[in-house]
Amino acid sequence: MLKNIRDYMIEWGDCDPAGIVYYPRYFEMFDHSTTLLISAASGVTKYELLKKYNFAGYPMVDTRAKFMMPTRFGDTVAIESVFTKVGTSSFDVHHKISKDGKLCLEGFETRVWVGRDPNDASKIKATPLPDDLAARFRGE
Amino acid sequence: MLKNIRDYMIEWGDCDPAGIVYYPRYFEMFDHSTTLLISAASGVTKYELLKKYNFAGYPMVDTRAKFMMPTRFGDTVAIESVFTKVGTSSFDVHHKISKDGKLCLEGFETRVWVGRDPNDASKIKATPLPDDLAARFRGE
Amino acid sequence: MLKNIRDYMIEWGDCDPAGIVYYPRYFEMFDHSTTLLISAASGVTKYELLKKYNFAGYPMVDTRAKFMMPTRFGDTVAIESVFTKVGTSSFDVHHKISKDGKLCLEGFETRVWVGRDPNDASKIKATPLPDDLAARFRGE
Amino acid sequence: MLKNIRDYMIEWGDCDPAGIVYYPRYFEMFDHSTTLLISAASGVTKYELLKKYNFAGYPMVDTRAKFMMPTRFGDTVAIESVFTKVGTSSFDVHHKISKDGKLCLEGFETRVWVGRDPNDASKIKATPLPDDLAARFRGE
Repeated sequence: MLKNIRDYMIEWGDCDPAGIVYYPRYFEMFDHSTTLLISAASGVTKYELLKKYNFAGYPMVDTRAKFMMPTRFGDTVAIESVFTKVGTSSFDVHHKISKDGKLCLEGFETRVWVGRDPNDASKIKATPLPDDLAARFRGE
Repeated sequence: MLKNIRDYMIEWGDCDPAGIVYYPRYFEMFDHSTTLLISAASGVTKYELLKKYNFAGYPMVDTRAKFMMPTRFGDTVAIESVFTKVGTSSFDVHHKISKDGKLCLEGFETRVWVGRDPNDASKIKATPLPDDLAARFRGE
Repeated sequence: MLKNIRDYMIEWGDCDPAGIVYYPRYFEMFDHSTTLLISAASGVTKYELLKKYNFAGYPMVDTRAKFMMPTRFGDTVAIESVFTKVGTSSFDVHHKISKDGKLCLEGFETRVWVGRDPNDASKIKATPLPDDLAARFRGE
Repeated sequence: MLKNIRDYMIEWGDCDPAGIVYYPRYFEMFDHSTTLLISAASGVTKYELLKKYNFAGYPMVDTRAKFMMPTRFGDTVAIESVFTKVGTSSFDVHHKISKDGKLCLEGFETRVWVGRDPNDASKIKATPLPDDLAARFRGE
């Protein structure tokens, strides 16, 4: 399965009055990491991907996060993301955020690949993942 | 000129490690207040407005904010917004945020009314404000 | 168990290029709703609560969200939050966001009540929930 | 005067339903760039700086931004920040964000160096910039 690791420096603006990351910000980090993972698979940015394939995005269906250790502004963390399941029109990603080799939190997500509903362009519906992309998600 | 006032309770997540509002959040408050001002003028939400009139939005051209007093989570502030200039295809709004009657900060903005460029749908260009809306912006 | 319901109007700035709420923003709504729930129990704002009781906050330990239906700017949603478990030093909250009576997403969270570590003020550790607050969380 | 340049990839979550950066996000970029500029001057992170010097931060007093060209998710922009004035207890920074060498927007800010008020620790007041830091801000 395809994996991506990036370093991220926690910003002042990511943190709350307790001086640690305001937890919704971790989901922003996860979301961007999933985008980077898909860019690594496709070779293009999300903007180009949306034009190349006729689809409408990969919205979240189910996500969970478990928090072990806080992180704060100035910390440089490693965000590791890996596909854990690639289905017909959905996929799972597992994220781990660590500092100095210690796991601080982990995130789990299931997303669905969607296109515009042919009967109502204002709606979206699940659509099969392109075969070439799915193969790259699986690391083939 | 049309005016709008709303109360807003500062959230924990609006604040930074200094315990006061992280200033980019004030621009989020201003942006929503301008949307509410335009909704008050048009009688519809921004979503409906974008469908009703053939336009692409009212992006920011120039904005400024001056900060006198910090506010923090749990504070209820009053956000007062008023049109200060309504031009052919642009308008100015002045925002004031106060707590217990004391001015904490003020914001100034110039926005432009834009439509899709007829020669390139991926681009936007200034387009005249609809007359009926402009008149309501001016409080007529 | 104590329950809180509030209406919230989805803002332009809550939404992403797909025109629907950028999902980390839902966690901001959940976080503020938990704060409001605790304020309803305590009768004071979070700022006053942190001064009244000698504690350091109620950080997240585990959270999950399931998404059924998107919401978009201009939508007014109902956010319903209820304590589902009140332990010695932790508690669970269940959030539901609905539009026109239809469930759009739900969130689950486990938080821990923490104080400053007496051996190292830069660290936090679980501390018992004050009895009076715990009783109000349970709706007693 | 000290200068800092960094590349930044615009994220999906930075953008609004128009597909371009939601402008309050630019102020988040500017804020972090000012922090990086001060870190370049001091050699330490903001977290360490707040411990090293006895001060409470450098809140915004006045900020302005002018927008020439939108940017969107997937774009890599260059953010250039430079001190333009270093006073006794305040300083100015000028930010420029460009894409492919074209200026997209610029920001201006005046911040004040503050310490805890000796008469009321819950309040802040302007305090002189440490000489060594001020000299480095000026590029000496």
